[in-house]
Amino acid sequence: MSLRLIATGGTFDKHYNELTGELGFADSHLPAVIARSRMTVAVALETLPLLDSLDMQDADRQRVLAACRAAPEPAIVIIHGTDTMRETAGVLGEAALAKTIVLTGAMIPYEIANSDALFNLGFATGVAQTLPAGVYVAMNGQVFAWDKVTKNRAAGVFQPA
Amino acid sequence: MSLRLIATGGTFDKHYNELTGELGFADSHLPAVIARSRMTVAVALETLPLLDSLDMQDADRQRVLAACRAAPEPAIVIIHGTDTMRETAGVLGEAALAKTIVLTGAMIPYEIANSDALFNLGFATGVAQTLPAGVYVAMNGQVFAWDKVTKNRAAGVFQPA
Amino acid sequence: MSLRLIATGGTFDKHYNELTGELGFADSHLPAVIARSRMTVAVALETLPLLDSLDMQDADRQRVLAACRAAPEPAIVIIHGTDTMRETAGVLGEAALAKTIVLTGAMIPYEIANSDALFNLGFATGVAQTLPAGVYVAMNGQVFAWDKVTKNRAAGVFQPA
Amino acid sequence: MSLRLIATGGTFDKHYNELTGELGFADSHLPAVIARSRMTVAVALETLPLLDSLDMQDADRQRVLAACRAAPEPAIVIIHGTDTMRETAGVLGEAALAKTIVLTGAMIPYEIANSDALFNLGFATGVAQTLPAGVYVAMNGQVFAWDKVTKNRAAGVFQPA
Repeated sequence: MSLRLIATGGTFDKHYNELTGELGFADSHLPAVIARSRMTVAVALETLPLLDSLDMQDADRQRVLAACRAAPEPAIVIIHGTDTMRETAGVLGEAALAKTIVLTGAMIPYEIANSDALFNLGFATGVAQTLPAGVYVAMNGQVFAWDKVTKNRAAGVFQPA
Repeated sequence: MSLRLIATGGTFDKHYNELTGELGFADSHLPAVIARSRMTVAVALETLPLLDSLDMQDADRQRVLAACRAAPEPAIVIIHGTDTMRETAGVLGEAALAKTIVLTGAMIPYEIANSDALFNLGFATGVAQTLPAGVYVAMNGQVFAWDKVTKNRAAGVFQPA
Repeated sequence: MSLRLIATGGTFDKHYNELTGELGFADSHLPAVIARSRMTVAVALETLPLLDSLDMQDADRQRVLAACRAAPEPAIVIIHGTDTMRETAGVLGEAALAKTIVLTGAMIPYEIANSDALFNLGFATGVAQTLPAGVYVAMNGQVFAWDKVTKNRAAGVFQPA
Repeated sequence: MSLRLIATGGTFDKHYNELTGELGFADSHLPAVIARSRMTVAVALETLPLLDSLDMQDADRQRVLAACRAAPEPAIVIIHGTDTMRETAGVLGEAALAKTIVLTGAMIPYEIANSDALFNLGFATGVAQTLPAGVYVAMNGQVFAWDKVTKNRAAGVFQPA
């Protein structure tokens, strides 16, 4: 089994800029996270432009789709912002590639205390290797089909839709 | 899907005792870890005596087996020390319960910098929900059948056997 | 020696709100930080409204001054935002109370990786017990007199002025 | 003001070895800690052999004394194990160098959750710049003269003696 991780930004990868006092993007945390995970499965990391998912446009989602289409690996994990994860999952789901594609993210950035980022990446990395081809959202310790999920923003959790 | 987590100790759950300067066991970290994971799937946590897996005797493994047998959930994750994870997996594998049982642990305790514990728990929690009934070891971002895995102690990784 | 800590907010105490994705204020981290420091000196914690120091008005600085004036302790540490720390120090300095008052803060919030908050609090807590009466800014491992310091915002450090 | 930090090991600098499962010494954490502190005061770091202070012999204490004697800086912070911090402070105190020498350490290693290491280093770094020449132990947010302190091992705190 080999695996591709595609970083697209989102809360998972946000970084605190101490000069501006704002959360934005710098280098992705994914190389450090992958080392920390001690994964011995073959992992290819592909870093797309890091974006807040509220800033993602159609062209950005098409770029994610193109990356999935071009990937030689049968299993792909996409690290993505939670606010429009469902929309990107829709673009990928309708393309119906013969691959297992799992989108995940985080409610708290990797570098902030009590973050769910590492758990979510582990979860997504696991189910990407075990689920049949298809597009899934993996959040809150659950797997959702790409067209049967919604983010409950008031509660901060994903749930069936 | 509902899930049972069974804590048995191991490196994952070790705690630094500041009075003695030693790593041992106190309260399990699992309640805090589960809260941090933001899992919305139904999770039952069962805490068995917390042991270094090198100290596990036959009776301890039988207690783990009894807990799996008694569990009403179809999917079980066992947090276990890595040194004898293979042995406990063998006891469970030979019992051939009609459940999906996944053993995981950590190379670095949850409370120590750069720990793989949270990643591993996410990974195990994912594959426990997606694999068919059977007994598995989930470490290093890989799933191993219970009777086809060994720990390479010099390298600190699990590999096929 | 007894010591008063006065929390006024600032970067030190910012908290990531996972529902809004913004850094703001919730409960102060100071009670947890004090426990973690294992201080055995008598410490009284006083929590004023937690503010970004850019939002501090004259009335807010007067409230800090009133708290210092009312404090029975001879040594006071104020946790404050860095952007207007100099201005609050000026209000306190001109009041010329017969106490040792040390302002500190952080460039990275306590709850974010690589934070300087705990170091700075330790530093300020130390010099507050050893300096003569007066008002000081303690940042970057240095003590500055209240009227001889400026924040270099481009570099993110305090320096003599 | 310029400052010398002398690393001698102790709990502060212990590192978890994931292959052996033991806490020991590898590279000192001090370079990372100093960067994290954002100190702009001139700091020279000198790393002596890293030891558990229970393993320190007379020759080890003489080496610490020699390092203090040779240091061109007027202020020195020594990172030391807590169990025999008092003994090393005694060797330094009797030498009566015309420098301010502050010994500190930690009850929990820097790399373990809830560590007091960063607080203690900040505290010691502050009082080393403000106290008159002499030898001091700085722990638990307090300064103790070298010959008037003892570690209460049952409680895990330093107290007057």
